[in-house]
Amino acid sequence: MIMVRKMKIQYTLLKQEKNTKARYGTLKTNYGTFFTPMFMPVGTLANVKTLTSDELKQMNSAVILSNTYHLWLRPGAEVIEKAGGLHSFMNYDGPILTDSGGFQVFSLAKDKKKDIVEEGVHFKSHLDGKALFLTPELSIQIQNKLDSDIAMSFDECPPYPVTREYMEKSVERTLRWAKRGKAVHNNPRQSLFGIVQGGEFEDLRAYSAKETVKMDFDGYSIGGTSVGEDKETMYHMVDYAIAYLPEDKPRYLMGVGDPLDIIEGVIRGVDMFDCVLPTRIARHGNAFTKDGKINLKNLKYKEDFTPIEMDCDCYTCTHYTKAYLRHLITSSESLGGRLLSIHNIRFLIRLTEELREAIQKDSLLAYKDTFINRYQKKI
Amino acid sequence: MIMVRKMKIQYTLLKQEKNTKARYGTLKTNYGTFFTPMFMPVGTLANVKTLTSDELKQMNSAVILSNTYHLWLRPGAEVIEKAGGLHSFMNYDGPILTDSGGFQVFSLAKDKKKDIVEEGVHFKSHLDGKALFLTPELSIQIQNKLDSDIAMSFDECPPYPVTREYMEKSVERTLRWAKRGKAVHNNPRQSLFGIVQGGEFEDLRAYSAKETVKMDFDGYSIGGTSVGEDKETMYHMVDYAIAYLPEDKPRYLMGVGDPLDIIEGVIRGVDMFDCVLPTRIARHGNAFTKDGKINLKNLKYKEDFTPIEMDCDCYTCTHYTKAYLRHLITSSESLGGRLLSIHNIRFLIRLTEELREAIQKDSLLAYKDTFINRYQKKI
Repeated sequence: MIMVRKMKIQYTLLKQEKNTKARYGTLKTNYGTFFTPMFMPVGTLANVKTLTSDELKQMNSAVILSNTYHLWLRPGAEVIEKAGGLHSFMNYDGPILTDSGGFQVFSLAKDKKKDIVEEGVHFKSHLDGKALFLTPELSIQIQNKLDSDIAMSFDECPPYPVTREYMEKSVERTLRWAKRGKAVHNNPRQSLFGIVQGGEFEDLRAYSAKETVKMDFDGYSIGGTSVGEDKETMYHMVDYAIAYLPEDKPRYLMGVGDPLDIIEGVIRGVDMFDCVLPTRIARHGNAFTKDGKINLKNLKYKEDFTPIEMDCDCYTCTHYTKAYLRHLITSSESLGGRLLSIHNIRFLIRLTEELREAIQKDSLLAYKDTFINRYQKKI
Repeated sequence: MIMVRKMKIQYTLLKQEKNTKARYGTLKTNYGTFFTPMFMPVGTLANVKTLTSDELKQMNSAVILSNTYHLWLRPGAEVIEKAGGLHSFMNYDGPILTDSGGFQVFSLAKDKKKDIVEEGVHFKSHLDGKALFLTPELSIQIQNKLDSDIAMSFDECPPYPVTREYMEKSVERTLRWAKRGKAVHNNPRQSLFGIVQGGEFEDLRAYSAKETVKMDFDGYSIGGTSVGEDKETMYHMVDYAIAYLPEDKPRYLMGVGDPLDIIEGVIRGVDMFDCVLPTRIARHGNAFTKDGKINLKNLKYKEDFTPIEMDCDCYTCTHYTKAYLRHLITSSESLGGRLLSIHNIRFLIRLTEELREAIQKDSLLAYKDTFINRYQKKI
């Protein structure tokens, strides 16, 4: 079932949209070739919450993401290594990207306390407060053991805002950490991405991008977004970084999954997105629709025997009504969150499918206007 | 997808086992013909917790059970009626049995307080303490609206033990309630079962059975078990009741799902069983195996890369290892409970498949010995 994997990923740019920086391309992986731009569902603990691998395949997902920090704590990298790697452990025969743990150290450390030293980061486990020390080398070594298809460099992800002085030092440290991680990376079938930092400072983003590209990674991420900045600032961060990223490598905007942000990211030349949003909002009864986000707990759905979206091809919309989903959600039955997760992930994947079509037709800006007009009307 | 339903269920006795009272038969329903003895998964709130209807079909389930009391409170019988009945509401195109609410009134009433009068039972909602009044007529009317394939009479389910004097009065009341419910039953495609009560008193069970059978129901349940009595007493209750039940109607032992109790029930002539056990224990990390129940939280499964049972054909055992399931359960990922529910329900359905085979071969007692020896070795 799990095929023999040999190579790193290969990005091919198939078409550059005429009116924007949007790109239509392919990502060749050991598990098949997938189109970009793509949305990657997040399986923090080696599962996309409530869903099986088969269900992810059925909704046409390509790369999925899993979290190095979480897997390091539970079940531990050694268990997954002994299982034959993450694919075998979670029985997913599609490409997997692992993050570096950098973001989690900064967002999940117990009491938000951490001590950043040149060697790495001292912090406490969010589970039991145990003292932990994560270094660029250790992050890569864990990811080598997890045997994901794409590993991420260990970076410092500063909050927003920080002083320019702090950000200058942080960018330099992230570059040194990227170099150290790359030096120990030792898995010929695992690609390694560099991460561009620099906050909202245009010259620091440019510097970070150029220096990271010099190290010649298999792809490049834009980090340090969705950390408290406003949308316009985030879009600028993307613009500043992408200007210096090579055309022949994939670009990944980390932690971004709001539909409007995906559209803006694609317009700016991003190829890959990930976010826990579709599964997290599902657990609270929320569903994406083209007419904006809706909450199924709303009384108006009590006797609404239509699917969430009439034209959606997901398992949930082809099998269940809003009235039934509302019943499950208001009765705290976890099948409700599961079915909404399926719809929400499929919604974002369908969005990327439509964006790819618009890029091919050079009609992305028109698509964006139509989408936003409809999506924001009901928000 | 949902076919036109016209008729009541029909039971056919195909084979009586030589050495026991066990029966092999079929239950013809509007959704196909199914073999008995059968185990019915419980979908309290119009879903078998965490699972879709397709998944139930995949594990070869036949009749499933849903709870009148719970559906009456949420989403309400009217909503389900407007949806076109329970099959349509929950998108299950297989037979559904609804209980009467009798057991829930006695087990779930807020503060266990209830006031039983001749007309019905006054009690308070377990959700919000609201005063409720359920009568034999109302229970049947709700079930008529739910449009299940098999409805149950509304009975009094006394605790164990009660005095003989109390039980005598209770049995008489349950008989009067059965008559009143039958009088208002008005759904030509819905079968109606009577319930035999009488506690541990042989003559009262006999009396209850004979009087209930006189009313000519489509099937007969044995109620008032699993209410605190020991196993031997429960088996006696079953013996006492079944002695007076007709051969040409199905017999249903309510709320029983322990593997050993299913075997003992089958030996005594029971055709149908239901229980929340397989899904409830799943949520706590427990799995049935032929070598006894195991808890996946156990450290010894941390690096056990084999399925729960090598020879099990369920989705979980054909896709996932104990190490992965342990990881999900210990990390509180609800996919774990979902996958264990699939295995546990399939385990009980497979058990009934094997029991049917043993009945056909007149080897039920040998099957029982082999099963028990293996099952109890590790308990």
